[in-house]
Amino acid sequence: MLEELKRAVCQANIELFERGIVLYTWGNVSGFDRKSGYVVIKPSGVPYDGMMPDDMVVVSLDGRVVEGKYRPSSDTPTHLELYRSFEGIGGVVHTHSRNAVAFAQSGLAIPALGTTHADYFHGEVPCTRSLTEEEVAEAYEANTGKVIVEAFEELDYVGIPGVLVKNHGPFCWGKDPSEAVYHAAVLEEVAGIAQATLSLNAMSHLDDYVLDKHYQRKHGVGAYYGQER
Amino acid sequence: MLEELKRAVCQANIELFERGIVLYTWGNVSGFDRKSGYVVIKPSGVPYDGMMPDDMVVVSLDGRVVEGKYRPSSDTPTHLELYRSFEGIGGVVHTHSRNAVAFAQSGLAIPALGTTHADYFHGEVPCTRSLTEEEVAEAYEANTGKVIVEAFEELDYVGIPGVLVKNHGPFCWGKDPSEAVYHAAVLEEVAGIAQATLSLNAMSHLDDYVLDKHYQRKHGVGAYYGQER
Amino acid sequence: MLEELKRAVCQANIELFERGIVLYTWGNVSGFDRKSGYVVIKPSGVPYDGMMPDDMVVVSLDGRVVEGKYRPSSDTPTHLELYRSFEGIGGVVHTHSRNAVAFAQSGLAIPALGTTHADYFHGEVPCTRSLTEEEVAEAYEANTGKVIVEAFEELDYVGIPGVLVKNHGPFCWGKDPSEAVYHAAVLEEVAGIAQATLSLNAMSHLDDYVLDKHYQRKHGVGAYYGQER
Amino acid sequence: MLEELKRAVCQANIELFERGIVLYTWGNVSGFDRKSGYVVIKPSGVPYDGMMPDDMVVVSLDGRVVEGKYRPSSDTPTHLELYRSFEGIGGVVHTHSRNAVAFAQSGLAIPALGTTHADYFHGEVPCTRSLTEEEVAEAYEANTGKVIVEAFEELDYVGIPGVLVKNHGPFCWGKDPSEAVYHAAVLEEVAGIAQATLSLNAMSHLDDYVLDKHYQRKHGVGAYYGQER
Repeated sequence: MLEELKRAVCQANIELFERGIVLYTWGNVSGFDRKSGYVVIKPSGVPYDGMMPDDMVVVSLDGRVVEGKYRPSSDTPTHLELYRSFEGIGGVVHTHSRNAVAFAQSGLAIPALGTTHADYFHGEVPCTRSLTEEEVAEAYEANTGKVIVEAFEELDYVGIPGVLVKNHGPFCWGKDPSEAVYHAAVLEEVAGIAQATLSLNAMSHLDDYVLDKHYQRKHGVGAYYGQER
Repeated sequence: MLEELKRAVCQANIELFERGIVLYTWGNVSGFDRKSGYVVIKPSGVPYDGMMPDDMVVVSLDGRVVEGKYRPSSDTPTHLELYRSFEGIGGVVHTHSRNAVAFAQSGLAIPALGTTHADYFHGEVPCTRSLTEEEVAEAYEANTGKVIVEAFEELDYVGIPGVLVKNHGPFCWGKDPSEAVYHAAVLEEVAGIAQATLSLNAMSHLDDYVLDKHYQRKHGVGAYYGQER
Repeated sequence: MLEELKRAVCQANIELFERGIVLYTWGNVSGFDRKSGYVVIKPSGVPYDGMMPDDMVVVSLDGRVVEGKYRPSSDTPTHLELYRSFEGIGGVVHTHSRNAVAFAQSGLAIPALGTTHADYFHGEVPCTRSLTEEEVAEAYEANTGKVIVEAFEELDYVGIPGVLVKNHGPFCWGKDPSEAVYHAAVLEEVAGIAQATLSLNAMSHLDDYVLDKHYQRKHGVGAYYGQER
Repeated sequence: MLEELKRAVCQANIELFERGIVLYTWGNVSGFDRKSGYVVIKPSGVPYDGMMPDDMVVVSLDGRVVEGKYRPSSDTPTHLELYRSFEGIGGVVHTHSRNAVAFAQSGLAIPALGTTHADYFHGEVPCTRSLTEEEVAEAYEANTGKVIVEAFEELDYVGIPGVLVKNHGPFCWGKDPSEAVYHAAVLEEVAGIAQATLSLNAMSHLDDYVLDKHYQRKHGVGAYYGQER
């Protein structure tokens, strides 16, 4: 079942590795099939090298394994929480990419400091609060999803397709697995540039009207970046 | 038309990518044909991989598309402003290379701290002022060109073939597209060295007579670096 | 003798090089054969390129060369001290990888700042005390092993499979040579992330209950990361 | 003439490039033939890619071109000054490698902070004084050699086979061109580690007896690193 989505999810996982964003098995990609309501996700702890579409695991939105010879990624409950809460997204990625993790570990949002950021993220990329001891003990991965959703209570998850989980690392999403990987790669680069910027000038700042302009020229009504679709 | 320039511009765009200076579609190169007064530029949002000379777009200096199956780069008006104002240049490059963007986002010029810098840039590489809200709303890309030109009112654009647009990134130029890419690659390296230098010693400083000596031994009357031409 | 272990140790040495963790001959891997009580280790100062299993040196736990055409690594006495003191380990790796060495040179432990760290190291990775002048003069390499063991007097070497030797660099271990290399590669990445984290926020901190959760979900009783074994 | 040395110098120049220590033409290697008293050096401004032994230039110790179709490197007078003053060296390398240049631009010596440094450099790698305006105007490249020699008035150029020219970059040397490149590659790595170390702890320090131990176990009487020669 869902052969095409399995291929896309497998390919997106491999792309993470080929782009050098993940070491060993430190990342996972999933995709959501709106029609069936099923999620296809990377198996847990399996290397990217030689991974095949058939190795992917199919799970229902409430976490039941529907098909697959492996256990799904241990982060599956986080992915599911995002699919349940962020309507319309079709792919989720989690990585431990170095620069984004540094921000996550520092507990700081990635500030919007330039147009590279603004081309993809319409504002700072937030960092969640810490999970409480109870939340960790109870249902760690599902509650990780919940603090992400909480961080977006007053933010637009379409305009800001990524987040930092405090002391952990980034989760990104998109309309499909491939776009989610794209956002994860961009987030890592933007985080690296932000670190260098802040070390040069801790008071660096981007005016809101430039943030808006860049975001809108690419994503708004009347966007004029790229070719007509 | 302009088949040779199209090849040169296409090749220069691909070189940007191969040198690792750009991610995804985050850069563009153009070339200027003095005879026809036309500019050849990369299409907007098209990947470098598999890009062909025929994909390039020909535009007039006032921004009219003369030939091409794609939309030109959204930064075209900035390129055109530079060709109109900086007489004699034949290539322009824009990138989001990490170290140069960090300086741009910090709002700081890249100071001339050593001979690596002085071999290419006869003084600090300036950072433009911010565009006003009106300038952004009116004609963002053309006004980006105008603040660059403004930054060079009292500077020599031949001796300093690059600039940082505040909160955005570097633009470089040269006698042709290939030299413009050369300057963009050097600027990125020089920006990286400058960051490391300033983190070691914020008071780092280069004497003017060393700056002059290095620039002149390579570019001045009686230059003796390289082979006779 | 010990042909299989020689192959494993040779391969692990080459992997160090291929992962870009070592320059020139700046690293060495050994493996321990519990049955014979012998250690197989890289020869001293021999390049990784073209290294063959037969180039490995077999030594007894008290440092006698049992077989081999080369001198063993000059760090052999340190490896032996670890095998004598840390019961159950089967592989040891020493490198001069950049980020881990930076912590070693700074005399600071690598603090546990996030889940990337907690997935492998159940607490900070300690830095040894300095060797005294006498310890250096007497038996430098063996005493290097002794200060490592001393640093683990109140720590669990299974839960924290690595250490920084002050002003020198990391030693890591594992159940076999391959796992020791795995830990050395992870330590280098974790050290790099920690540096970036501390430069963003010197007060960065990880709660103990998150440290425990991540370590245990991968290594504890009832671990659920990866596939069933 | 000197065909073997030309091959060695050509190969050493190419190795600089392949190791990623130089961009474009930003480095040069020479070798000294004690018997003839001639120096073989890279031509000025010629790319490494496709460079052949026959492209090398032969010059006498007083700077006369003896053979070659190209101009010698513009840094030739610096190389010659080193061969005239540092008896016994057989190879000299100059690069603009990023981390070493950062120290040179900051005007700071690379402090000996660990054993990676001590394995190659028996003390800090000094940074020269600035050249005076007169020294630059008169004979810039020869005077660059003179300030290097001045920096070693009370230092041992065998024990410390490299230097930083202030605001410029590193020069390294060795018994032949290949060893000089080895030292240049090590210097770059050591400089990178030192930067990271100082950013973690500005008070980092190595005890002299560890510095001595490591240098001597590799280079002293009774050295026991590597294989018997």
